[in-house]
Amino acid sequence: MTAEPVRAPHALPGFARSTVDGYAVRAADTYGVSEGLPGYLTVTGAVRMGAAPDVTVIPGTAVSMPTGGAIPPGADAVVMIEYTAEAMLGTIEVVRPVAPGEGIVRADEDAAEGQQLIPNGRVLRPQDLAMLAAAGVTSVRVHARPVVTVFSTGDEVVPPDTEALKPGQVRDATASALAALVSDAGGTPVHGTPKHGGIVSDDPGALERALRAALPESDVIVISAGSSVGTRDETASAVAALGPPGIWCHGLAIKPGKPTLLAECGPGTDTGTAGAPGIPVIGLPGNPRSALVVFRLIGMPLIRLVGGCAAAPPEPSTRAVLSRDLASATGRLDVVQVTVSNGVATPLFGASALLSVLTEADGCIVIPEEATGLDAGTEVTVTLYA
Amino acid sequence: MTAEPVRAPHALPGFARSTVDGYAVRAADTYGVSEGLPGYLTVTGAVRMGAAPDVTVIPGTAVSMPTGGAIPPGADAVVMIEYTAEAMLGTIEVVRPVAPGEGIVRADEDAAEGQQLIPNGRVLRPQDLAMLAAAGVTSVRVHARPVVTVFSTGDEVVPPDTEALKPGQVRDATASALAALVSDAGGTPVHGTPKHGGIVSDDPGALERALRAALPESDVIVISAGSSVGTRDETASAVAALGPPGIWCHGLAIKPGKPTLLAECGPGTDTGTAGAPGIPVIGLPGNPRSALVVFRLIGMPLIRLVGGCAAAPPEPSTRAVLSRDLASATGRLDVVQVTVSNGVATPLFGASALLSVLTEADGCIVIPEEATGLDAGTEVTVTLYA
Repeated sequence: MTAEPVRAPHALPGFARSTVDGYAVRAADTYGVSEGLPGYLTVTGAVRMGAAPDVTVIPGTAVSMPTGGAIPPGADAVVMIEYTAEAMLGTIEVVRPVAPGEGIVRADEDAAEGQQLIPNGRVLRPQDLAMLAAAGVTSVRVHARPVVTVFSTGDEVVPPDTEALKPGQVRDATASALAALVSDAGGTPVHGTPKHGGIVSDDPGALERALRAALPESDVIVISAGSSVGTRDETASAVAALGPPGIWCHGLAIKPGKPTLLAECGPGTDTGTAGAPGIPVIGLPGNPRSALVVFRLIGMPLIRLVGGCAAAPPEPSTRAVLSRDLASATGRLDVVQVTVSNGVATPLFGASALLSVLTEADGCIVIPEEATGLDAGTEVTVTLYA
Repeated sequence: MTAEPVRAPHALPGFARSTVDGYAVRAADTYGVSEGLPGYLTVTGAVRMGAAPDVTVIPGTAVSMPTGGAIPPGADAVVMIEYTAEAMLGTIEVVRPVAPGEGIVRADEDAAEGQQLIPNGRVLRPQDLAMLAAAGVTSVRVHARPVVTVFSTGDEVVPPDTEALKPGQVRDATASALAALVSDAGGTPVHGTPKHGGIVSDDPGALERALRAALPESDVIVISAGSSVGTRDETASAVAALGPPGIWCHGLAIKPGKPTLLAECGPGTDTGTAGAPGIPVIGLPGNPRSALVVFRLIGMPLIRLVGGCAAAPPEPSTRAVLSRDLASATGRLDVVQVTVSNGVATPLFGASALLSVLTEADGCIVIPEEATGLDAGTEVTVTLYA
């Protein structure tokens, strides 16, 4: 994302260009011509692509032009080749008049010198790269990608490449998915720190030590917390131990995702400055599915914000009709996973511990806080997983 | 994108787990209990996260459970801690009955052994990575990213880092944007070949030599053609010289983008096999704006197809009301760039040589072949540039 507006270092395209194949002429020489009464012009030269014109168009003359070629001095229009014919060697007849400026892109028509080409705060799109290349701008000041350190906590959590699980163990499912979501939001995911691997045990103090080590190197910290009350408490106390500003909230009116912790930890990069911002910390629920739902809702916008992006990019979505009634408690935001087929959204249910609900889903619908549910047949907006 | 379905190497989560903090019990021990008439159970142990249970639940007993812990033998339900109280040391009272299976995720509830976790042909989403990690699947057979070689032709074209342009020169605007679009479509963009840089002159034979060198290393070739009739003809003859199957079409009923060439060149990787598929070649219009519009419409789906992806991914879009009438010729597909504000889509006009029309646009609308235009006030779907 750009951190400053980019301005045109010179006018673009920089010289008047032909938009058609044809002949550069003085428009006045074509006034009144028609199929029945063609005008005749002497061809005095040809413009080559990429070269400066070496001929001037004077009254009664024309210069052969390729599309994109530089308009020679004296010409103020280009007549399309389709409206000309070679009358004899070195002479063309013109059967349709052109107005001044016709068939021409002005030297500053794409951009005047100093004009803004790309606004501040834009995630550069393919066409923006084209414009920058056209202007010869090959480096742009951009916001740094926020470094997002991800920790997974819990004595039960083992790395994904663990072949045989011991009873009670689960592989770290959330970290890989979080890394992908962090990248999608413009961040650089880091799984743990060199001294503290991404998986942190429930030992008292282990998480606090890991967080302390990560703070100076992180712009955002994400803790995929253990799911039990005990590990949730450990997350909260580890975060609290890192000092002010402290915990913003512990628990959100979202389903799934209630046991989410939001905090701001320790001094930021401006160490020692009173009131310096801390590092945002998100403690996610232990269930991978809840964690991923909450991270899409809250974590990704936070990372975009830290990365300088105030507005969420457009997401793919579709309108669909709900296949069945959906209950929802008032005052709670519900995120429901759905499949979509032939314009019908079918909700997927299952314990929030189940990942299969997410992998089967085509997208999700959000039931807002004020709703008490949605009736079958309601038209809903489904945010699609791309 | 996956090139085969991925199946669960073992049941997931692999062991019965608690979905709540509470006590593992035999459900029958809780039947009939209530606030007024609690049941009493002896606590015989506690399950630790990540460890095998070391105690069996026998009638009249309960075992303390963290969320996600392994259900001990003998238990068939977990009663939430909220519905229990410590009656005296080592004894709890239970004030609400649980049914068998309550508070438990079965050992194979996320997936049975051998069950399909991820279908063939899926571009892996964050939640799919989570599921694969949970299953211990750390490598998956995927389709190779198609190698897409991009050439820019034209004596007027110079590299984007050219500081001072000579009269008639333009910087290569299209290649950088095409590279981004190729990546978005799942391809690996290559700008030219080691021997033939990305920019090819209009010298007779230069493009043919460059194409011949690129053929064995490419899955798709894209030529951002010179815009004049001469260079268009040169592209067509260079492509034709590479041999069968040859040119599919030269000219499309699309605006902008009419002078687009589609071809299949030379033998593919199965050299010598009769009927072996050739390498698809797209000759794009010379105007960067036309080139980018056509490439989104035709090039990106082609690259996805070559990469094994039959269906286009969902794109962000919005409904908006057209601010003014739009004319369109019947039998021609029109792509109109628009800005969108407050639900109103305002078309942007300007010569197709102008890149600024694309950089100012929020998205585009497509007027289908059969339409003769759209009236002001028509509700249209705007495909948004993310």
